[in-house]
Amino acid sequence: MITIAVDAMGGDHAPRPEVEGSVLAAREFGVRILLVGQPNVIRPELAKHAAPNLPIEIVAASDVITMEDHPAQAFRRKKDSSVHVAARLVREAKADGMVSAGNTGAVMTVAKFLLGTLESVDRVALAAPFPNAKGGVSVLLDVGANVDSRPEHLVQFAVMGEVYYRATFGNKRPRVGLLSVGEEEIKGNELTREVYTRLKKSPVHFVGNVEGGDLFSGAVDVIVSDGFVGNIALKICEGLAFQIFGLLKKSINSSLVSQIGGVLSKGAFKALSKTIDYTEYGGAPLLGVRGVCVIGHGRSNANAVKNAIRVAAGLARARMNEKIEQELSAAAVLA
Amino acid sequence: MITIAVDAMGGDHAPRPEVEGSVLAAREFGVRILLVGQPNVIRPELAKHAAPNLPIEIVAASDVITMEDHPAQAFRRKKDSSVHVAARLVREAKADGMVSAGNTGAVMTVAKFLLGTLESVDRVALAAPFPNAKGGVSVLLDVGANVDSRPEHLVQFAVMGEVYYRATFGNKRPRVGLLSVGEEEIKGNELTREVYTRLKKSPVHFVGNVEGGDLFSGAVDVIVSDGFVGNIALKICEGLAFQIFGLLKKSINSSLVSQIGGVLSKGAFKALSKTIDYTEYGGAPLLGVRGVCVIGHGRSNANAVKNAIRVAAGLARARMNEKIEQELSAAAVLA
Repeated sequence: MITIAVDAMGGDHAPRPEVEGSVLAAREFGVRILLVGQPNVIRPELAKHAAPNLPIEIVAASDVITMEDHPAQAFRRKKDSSVHVAARLVREAKADGMVSAGNTGAVMTVAKFLLGTLESVDRVALAAPFPNAKGGVSVLLDVGANVDSRPEHLVQFAVMGEVYYRATFGNKRPRVGLLSVGEEEIKGNELTREVYTRLKKSPVHFVGNVEGGDLFSGAVDVIVSDGFVGNIALKICEGLAFQIFGLLKKSINSSLVSQIGGVLSKGAFKALSKTIDYTEYGGAPLLGVRGVCVIGHGRSNANAVKNAIRVAAGLARARMNEKIEQELSAAAVLA
Repeated sequence: MITIAVDAMGGDHAPRPEVEGSVLAAREFGVRILLVGQPNVIRPELAKHAAPNLPIEIVAASDVITMEDHPAQAFRRKKDSSVHVAARLVREAKADGMVSAGNTGAVMTVAKFLLGTLESVDRVALAAPFPNAKGGVSVLLDVGANVDSRPEHLVQFAVMGEVYYRATFGNKRPRVGLLSVGEEEIKGNELTREVYTRLKKSPVHFVGNVEGGDLFSGAVDVIVSDGFVGNIALKICEGLAFQIFGLLKKSINSSLVSQIGGVLSKGAFKALSKTIDYTEYGGAPLLGVRGVCVIGHGRSNANAVKNAIRVAAGLARARMNEKIEQELSAAAVLA
């Protein structure tokens, strides 16, 4: 049975969604859960669920990393945080993967240093799934694990993204694109032009450059980018979606006729929200670490936590890291 | 009287919106218009408007640059295009500025080479205005005039963006932010960390790093970025807005009750579309060229063309380029 360590203290509303999501995941996916955090906080929350027969255990961790904590400081000072303990459970093979909806920077730092990186990987990458216009999912990586990437890093991101996509979304030969400012090979900056040349020669199913709008067009499955660009892209999406929904709400409340219309089309809005709801896609995996680490949004609800556990269990089951090592060795031979 | 050369052949629906927008601008803003393009196409369109007394003249240009043309090739081969002729009118001081809704890359190339750059400017920058959550406008530059910028280029972008913002949106002391991956000074890549240090010492009203979501938050008025990142940001916004509207439309048509609701809240949608309608903001000026050049979206309607003419006339009237030269000299003294 796959075991997932869940950071019960991380999210904005912890431990409620973490505990509920864990109960749902244990019930639906047959995974074993280690709920990591302060037992006196987790226990009453767990007691609310009729889950005595589910394989859920509490593992004590005394410290809590907050959203305000500085990642590097939290890593050094809060050595018994729920994130540290979850990472140690993975390192000691007591869990097959970890899930956290906590401070993204802190989770990345802790996971990177406590788990270490895979032998053939120079830099880890955070991968973010986006719903696309074709009803599928496109994954962007790196969305912020590092900046000032070199060409070889982006080639590694391409391979890691491909293996993760295959394991998670069941597509055997995902199409990989390079985020740039035009489709032609000569378009882009120094970095992307060099990466283009290398990806063309690699075993990756590389289909060329894509532009910003292709995050949502469904033209490709995996989109590769430096973490500086990818992080800005991710934040733009969150900001713009928020802005459009806000405007929409304001517009709809602005007159009585529209208000009635708004109530009648509420069902449609709900369907829409669900379509663009990132929580359906299971959080962002940190690729390249020794072990499986999936990071959820701080606003994660129980459904988001459940899906992050599903993704983490799937990556462990698919032996993603072995495949990343194999493919990167193959790519190195061809390079 | 300010004179603006309007490329009548550029946009997707040329010359209809170009001619109508020119008529509206001449009437409302008291500017003189030179409609540049094929007279046999422009004349019948102009005849549709009761505009015999308006200061609108046709200037002949035999070639037309299409959206499919390669910018550098179009520049070299179509020397009598409406874009070339409009740029020459500005160079020869027969017009105070030019407006085009044509092939953005081609307009940038033609303007850069025929007009030349200002003495204190190393690289031109394309500035794109975005509506923000505070009901104002935030401007992002560069959105794609160049990639692989050096620190001094971004400092110049900051100064140019500030002068343009002041002239166009009437804010005497616009707040300038640097697009990065976190607010702290140490966050960012090599380029932005160096730019941060320089902007802090410059006369620009620099308020620090901003993140992707701040394109819409209204936290700052001018956002500075390398053209690679800025272009991807711009394309993401277009793509995501398109995607959300598509989903919304689909959701609303998906059931009868929602359909009725949709019809009733149509007024609200119209108000919303207007709020996020870039055509209200007058197109993207190419900053740093000797002269005024404003580029509209290919989909520009008459309103968008009219507003681009308004912005171009305003920048000419405000003597933007003299101010850019002054501020850059002042910044150079302090650096």
